[in-house]
Amino acid sequence: MARPAVSTRALAVARGDEPADLLIRGGRVLAVATHEWLPTSLAVADGMIVGWGEREAREVVDVDGAALTPGFVDAHVHVESTKLWVDAFAAAVLPVGTTAVAVDPHEIANVLGAAGVRALMRAVQPLPMTFAVYAPSCVPASPFEGAGAELDATDIRALIEVDGAAGVGEVMNFPGVIAGDAEMLARIAAAGSRRVDGHSPEVSGPSLDAYLAAGVESDHEATSAAEALEKRRKGMWVFLREGSASRNIRALAPTIIEHGTDHAAFCADDREPTTLLTDGHVNDCVRIAVEAGIPEIDALVMATTRAAEYHGLWSLGSLAPGYQADILAFDELSSFKPARVWQAGQLVASGGAIVDGAIPAVPPEHLLYGTVTVGRPLAADDLAPAVPDGTRVRAIGVESRSLTTRNRVVTVGSGEDLCFAAVVERHRQTGRIGTGFATGFGLRRGALASTVAHDAHNIVCIGTGGADMAVAIARLEEIGGGQVAVLDGRPLAELALPLAGLMSDRPAAEVAAAQSVLSLVAERELGATVAEPFMQLSFIALSVIPELRLTDGGLVDVDAFRYVDVRV
Amino acid sequence: MARPAVSTRALAVARGDEPADLLIRGGRVLAVATHEWLPTSLAVADGMIVGWGEREAREVVDVDGAALTPGFVDAHVHVESTKLWVDAFAAAVLPVGTTAVAVDPHEIANVLGAAGVRALMRAVQPLPMTFAVYAPSCVPASPFEGAGAELDATDIRALIEVDGAAGVGEVMNFPGVIAGDAEMLARIAAAGSRRVDGHSPEVSGPSLDAYLAAGVESDHEATSAAEALEKRRKGMWVFLREGSASRNIRALAPTIIEHGTDHAAFCADDREPTTLLTDGHVNDCVRIAVEAGIPEIDALVMATTRAAEYHGLWSLGSLAPGYQADILAFDELSSFKPARVWQAGQLVASGGAIVDGAIPAVPPEHLLYGTVTVGRPLAADDLAPAVPDGTRVRAIGVESRSLTTRNRVVTVGSGEDLCFAAVVERHRQTGRIGTGFATGFGLRRGALASTVAHDAHNIVCIGTGGADMAVAIARLEEIGGGQVAVLDGRPLAELALPLAGLMSDRPAAEVAAAQSVLSLVAERELGATVAEPFMQLSFIALSVIPELRLTDGGLVDVDAFRYVDVRV
Repeated sequence: MARPAVSTRALAVARGDEPADLLIRGGRVLAVATHEWLPTSLAVADGMIVGWGEREAREVVDVDGAALTPGFVDAHVHVESTKLWVDAFAAAVLPVGTTAVAVDPHEIANVLGAAGVRALMRAVQPLPMTFAVYAPSCVPASPFEGAGAELDATDIRALIEVDGAAGVGEVMNFPGVIAGDAEMLARIAAAGSRRVDGHSPEVSGPSLDAYLAAGVESDHEATSAAEALEKRRKGMWVFLREGSASRNIRALAPTIIEHGTDHAAFCADDREPTTLLTDGHVNDCVRIAVEAGIPEIDALVMATTRAAEYHGLWSLGSLAPGYQADILAFDELSSFKPARVWQAGQLVASGGAIVDGAIPAVPPEHLLYGTVTVGRPLAADDLAPAVPDGTRVRAIGVESRSLTTRNRVVTVGSGEDLCFAAVVERHRQTGRIGTGFATGFGLRRGALASTVAHDAHNIVCIGTGGADMAVAIARLEEIGGGQVAVLDGRPLAELALPLAGLMSDRPAAEVAAAQSVLSLVAERELGATVAEPFMQLSFIALSVIPELRLTDGGLVDVDAFRYVDVRV
Repeated sequence: MARPAVSTRALAVARGDEPADLLIRGGRVLAVATHEWLPTSLAVADGMIVGWGEREAREVVDVDGAALTPGFVDAHVHVESTKLWVDAFAAAVLPVGTTAVAVDPHEIANVLGAAGVRALMRAVQPLPMTFAVYAPSCVPASPFEGAGAELDATDIRALIEVDGAAGVGEVMNFPGVIAGDAEMLARIAAAGSRRVDGHSPEVSGPSLDAYLAAGVESDHEATSAAEALEKRRKGMWVFLREGSASRNIRALAPTIIEHGTDHAAFCADDREPTTLLTDGHVNDCVRIAVEAGIPEIDALVMATTRAAEYHGLWSLGSLAPGYQADILAFDELSSFKPARVWQAGQLVASGGAIVDGAIPAVPPEHLLYGTVTVGRPLAADDLAPAVPDGTRVRAIGVESRSLTTRNRVVTVGSGEDLCFAAVVERHRQTGRIGTGFATGFGLRRGALASTVAHDAHNIVCIGTGGADMAVAIARLEEIGGGQVAVLDGRPLAELALPLAGLMSDRPAAEVAAAQSVLSLVAERELGATVAEPFMQLSFIALSVIPELRLTDGGLVDVDAFRYVDVRV
């Protein structure tokens, strides 16, 4: 069960012998196991729902016909992708009804290793939100990148058995698992009786069989109903993803409509702060799912009890007696924005805003700061070595709304869109710098740089000249990490991300505003034409996605799985 | 996940790079998560299903259109009630498709305590069947009975944490839990992250709320659809029971038909060997459920993945890659008798019979024998003290097809049906004997005795005179426990149950035959008129069910929860 032990007072409240802490009356309650709305009151004691129906209570709240559901659960999210520290994250998503998240701190682990994961686990403790923190399984993500840390099977086992991690985070190295790589199988075995999350885009047939036989249990990469259906038929849990970039719920809805909600839940995976503030979080998934034809109760079941069930969060996902009092009250169900949110029986949000004092500040530990160190001043030539006009070079080709890059060949000086690109190792002062070219950004002047650079999170930088690139990188080192746009030797806009170079220590609204300004400046002042240039920038180093990538080790042809020369 | 680690060879089979051990082709496979029948082959390696679709294989079995389902799981059974030792039990139920059982060894624990539970856990290890053994929570069942052992919270915790018990067995003392009894709450807390099974007949409203708030998660005592519906709405798992005496599936079917299969499974609870051999086991539950209108796939889902899910048997309940190859092949689905049964990839039964050599003999450990010792010869007067005609006495009134007894007042010598009843302590040679009267058996001569006497399992005996009763009890002591019918100082029929006085060490067919002879003799030679006189006999000492019971401590008015005099 793993539910908290009940107090004798709470039992007395359940029996009706003592007054409840809180009685929520006048609502209709979603019964998740029987798929019904039932008119009843909910009695709460010690943060637990202890009874249905009328009770004496110290506080009575009449919700006037509201729909009452369990708190929403995100089945898989990289909290670092929101660029928010955990208190700001909680403050951003509790008002839209998220009371629990399964977190894979893969990004922080690439910078700070197990120590970073443990810092995150400590930080979430005081928050009024349940964090099921997984042990990242693929750090570093590829042999081409100089990450800040490595996690092997022993580290993963320690995170699970000693620190209480919820399971093994998404096993991105699916080719290794399928091929029977001993280290990957050892990492899966480290889960013991916990869960093993997967990541298997377009893996099907015998390859999928092997991935499943190895013990992987879930996937959030399905992009078509057919792909999701094969996975569910074969027993895999499918998390329907609606991130900032990858938006799959509409495409996957038919598998739920036709085959029900078993082995299905929602996840955000990667959501930018602007998306969180504008569109919401799991409530946005529910809204889109219902628009796509999934019955309302089914969508709510997926957003609550199914996700809780998968992650073994036995005290969450239901409004039944014995469950934690994570309760959402909806005046209407079209936006799925709750009017009120209780977490463990405490009102934490009302009318879309956090209740004063509901979220304690969680000062980030010292070790999270100061992770961006290049170790020496960089010259323009280090970043943008001169190449004669007429040289044919391999350029990373980016396209709007796609994280796949193209392996393009461009002639320098031909007038085709081209800019310099550099990736500078920033974790261990190795001095490693990879240089090359990118096309498709439309950059006409200045430079952009970011310490968010999946998955090793080195400094990635593009520019029309080495001088501004050097200024941009120096500025990021100065502010401890973040994203910056530079023109003529001066930063025009920046977003400081001093926590592991990935996250801000400021509230969500500030972060979202700074991010919007950065995008605007990149487009209007520097001429960038690709959509979301900083998101594109943060992915050009990710050497596990086709076709051409740049790491601190050099230019990588991902399909050939080897380094290649910049010059053709 | 807690699934066994995959071998590199099994992974190679999954990929299609090496031949499978077994390929089952030509069937339609039940996909439990998507509720479909799918035509595909199943490839097996190392006892695991590793792939769907064609593979090379060392052995190919064409099932010619058969329906393939996961092995059946009994969500709650007292294996002692079958009167069979575990090898004979497996031999009886594997041919009808049961490949896993959640066992609450409550009866053996009443006789031998934790040592008996551990002996059972050791005994099941070599069997081709999964036993999830729970730690009995209510031993002894009541303060009125002298049981052979006691289990407190510390014992239960040790059984779970040290010996790997699957959880806390049915918490029968629901009044104690609801009232907040500290020892009962400690026993529930001993579950840690494991399950807590419940037992809450007709408990509803605030009392049910309290029972659930205390952490109890399942129930198998619901007898009406309304009772089951309230329990499922409140998040409780409901096991639809079809035992030998209590048969509830038909009454409960509407809750499944209307609200689906979430939080629902099947259980046998208590099944006699004759019922097992005649009607079957979980397959019988499925057959009755389908007859009662539950859709075929829903009934199969409840019998497989739902029960596995509840009990955390993550490698069971599905035919997907990565799951144990517990596979049933059905030529037809009306009787739900499988034509073939594979367990962990081995063919264990075919055409309703065990495959030669599939089940190893499991010799019962020495400690299971010799548990019936009265300690002194008993005289007729010890068991049937003389009472003058005309005396008005309280008599335990039994009725066919009910385990509730009536608190009857009968005048001795009035011609009304009446016999002597005695319960003799047999565990610790305390010399305690409770005596009284029973009515409704219709016994006209001789005596019946049994060491199966819920829940303390002392010797319970009825007779028309003390002499035959003394012979019956002496005979049971002589054969180490069992059931016997005596007339004129000689046993006419008997069933030896030398294992804890509860189970035979013989095959199911022999046990069932002996039991049938006993019933016949009781009816034809001794005049018994009540249905199943030995089952009635074995329940007249159960001092937790209304209304009047006899224990080794004396006559108990269960409703008043105290001893009462035999004479009014």
